[in-house]
Amino acid sequence: MGTTLTPLPPGQTIGILGGGQLGRMLAMAAAKLGLKVHIYTDEENSPAAEVADRTTLARYDDEAALTRFAQDVSVVTYEFENVPVATAQFLERVVPVRPGSSALAVAQDRLREKQFMRDNAIPVAPFAAVNDTASLQAAVAEIGLPAILKTRVLGYDGKGQVRLRDDQAIATACDALANAPAILEGFIPFTSEFSVIAVRGLSAAAGTDSAPVAAFYDCPQNSHENGVLRRSVVPAPIDAETVAEACRIAALILEKLDYVGVLGVEFFHLANHAQGHPSLLVNEIAPRVHNSGHWTMDACTTGQFENHIRAVAGWPLGPTTRHSDVEMENLIGSEIHAWHALLTAEPGASLHVYGKAEARPGRKMGHINRLRPRSEAKSGG
Amino acid sequence: MGTTLTPLPPGQTIGILGGGQLGRMLAMAAAKLGLKVHIYTDEENSPAAEVADRTTLARYDDEAALTRFAQDVSVVTYEFENVPVATAQFLERVVPVRPGSSALAVAQDRLREKQFMRDNAIPVAPFAAVNDTASLQAAVAEIGLPAILKTRVLGYDGKGQVRLRDDQAIATACDALANAPAILEGFIPFTSEFSVIAVRGLSAAAGTDSAPVAAFYDCPQNSHENGVLRRSVVPAPIDAETVAEACRIAALILEKLDYVGVLGVEFFHLANHAQGHPSLLVNEIAPRVHNSGHWTMDACTTGQFENHIRAVAGWPLGPTTRHSDVEMENLIGSEIHAWHALLTAEPGASLHVYGKAEARPGRKMGHINRLRPRSEAKSGG
Repeated sequence: MGTTLTPLPPGQTIGILGGGQLGRMLAMAAAKLGLKVHIYTDEENSPAAEVADRTTLARYDDEAALTRFAQDVSVVTYEFENVPVATAQFLERVVPVRPGSSALAVAQDRLREKQFMRDNAIPVAPFAAVNDTASLQAAVAEIGLPAILKTRVLGYDGKGQVRLRDDQAIATACDALANAPAILEGFIPFTSEFSVIAVRGLSAAAGTDSAPVAAFYDCPQNSHENGVLRRSVVPAPIDAETVAEACRIAALILEKLDYVGVLGVEFFHLANHAQGHPSLLVNEIAPRVHNSGHWTMDACTTGQFENHIRAVAGWPLGPTTRHSDVEMENLIGSEIHAWHALLTAEPGASLHVYGKAEARPGRKMGHINRLRPRSEAKSGG
Repeated sequence: MGTTLTPLPPGQTIGILGGGQLGRMLAMAAAKLGLKVHIYTDEENSPAAEVADRTTLARYDDEAALTRFAQDVSVVTYEFENVPVATAQFLERVVPVRPGSSALAVAQDRLREKQFMRDNAIPVAPFAAVNDTASLQAAVAEIGLPAILKTRVLGYDGKGQVRLRDDQAIATACDALANAPAILEGFIPFTSEFSVIAVRGLSAAAGTDSAPVAAFYDCPQNSHENGVLRRSVVPAPIDAETVAEACRIAALILEKLDYVGVLGVEFFHLANHAQGHPSLLVNEIAPRVHNSGHWTMDACTTGQFENHIRAVAGWPLGPTTRHSDVEMENLIGSEIHAWHALLTAEPGASLHVYGKAEARPGRKMGHINRLRPRSEAKSGG
């Protein structure tokens, strides 16, 4: 085993870019394993800082702060995909960044992401680049309506999107996105959404033959409200062939990105697809732990947060098997204020609260996992 | 619901006296629920400080530091039973302390603990107070040999104990304990050791009629090596009647101490007891989360750490049911260095590392929980 593959022993420090709830839950998973965490964030009073050993509060382009951070940690990971690629590249000169800047570059730009999928023969919705009204008109002519115009970067939870139903909408669509570089995606009449939460260890990524390669949690079926994930249910009512194909695609993405850590891949399930056409499409990928994997914290011995930490620290991965059936529900905005009524009504629900001071509308404030004894129903993964 | 019973909302702060691994795991359980933690410890670089929002490093008799601490938190709890009673009493004048100073006073003095049990008709080993060689001789005359002489206070993990096998040992026994106030306990030829991990909510303690009162995890069977817990196994091979009697005793202790939080009660199981005599004895109690309950973190939806936090914060308790069979094994001293071999050999084992810098002999450095699907064997609780 080469020097760079030596697993990080307990007592060492993992740097995490980003201080949100994903960073918070990653920090707690690291602490379980005896690893320290140094959070780098540009937000004061971040949820992750509360449970981290050390925190740097600085901008993502503050090279002096980044240098001190890189020198203080043994490996860097990130908890959101909008970390500037330049930040990751700057750090990579000093310290390993896992997953690396290339996964970030693909995942944070919807156009590059779609091109990456098409280059690897992974089915996606029809798409075209849009820079202005003229290219939007050309894209609509190619893809047809209805379609969705999305900013290439910085969109999440339904933000930065305009749905185009008819030609009238075209004239104002680019204005609505402030003329940001965009992508037009054909509207997919999917029957359901599901995701693959995949994890790939360090040894496989570096081409050694030591196990493990990659592992997949059972697929959750996901439902969204107002563009935000509401609920993930496991096991999902999805046929085994579709699940197998989704995992094959996730494994291909991991390999092509030489990925280390947890990756979320969101799929559209197309039940009434034509003969010979795929029954699924990749909607998007997230190069990080994923909201639709939050149920793994309670329903699996090794949840996604621990497996991400294990992967980036070069540790053996834990099994992705689950001991229970489970429904994960997000608590959004003011819903968090009902925490007491919720626990009183459902004493067995596992409540997770992210420690955010302000319950703004649409903001993810916590989640609950409702466990049930494992059924014998077929499940994905 | 009276003011003092209002549950502590997320965002509020729990103060924890002590910075060891129990404080660390309590802090992580609090963070899961969105509660902040302020650790008060007299040790630098404590395991709990790494994951706590705030830490005070001061002596337990530093009244200025204690006052600032009390003013900064909404409720205080403790993670070890040797917190000076005076410290808890000082804090109680400013802020609720749960469990209170009276539980601490009983549990940290072996003589008061035994007297408390006898006063409540709870079976314990024969015992007598010892202050010098003369009172030791009287105690031996009463109790017989073999017997164990233990310091009244500050003993743990087998420290502060001398086993007396014959009269020759009597002369030097008090010297061995540096003439500290002591207690002689009759030697109990037990067949096994088990414990009850009990939890009592706030509402019951204050005499309201709101549920829940108290709850009990399934009893683990415990084995010790060199006076230190080695292993806890659930379910334990203990008959249902004995388990029921143990839980009845634990409930009585909770009630008599007007207890809030998790309490560990260690029992000796006497398989060959005489007709009409009890099949168990209380060995000792710990007014805190307990090492023999560490398996609950992985085998139950609501583990002992979360239920302790819920109790002291006035929240509804979570269920104590477990979804899996489990064996907990402590990693002591240098055993922690085998973490990588251990995870490689047992990828499914759940590893907990406490973040202690130095792996001194006999020091608890971490533990592993080995889960198996739940058997249909009878289990306690």
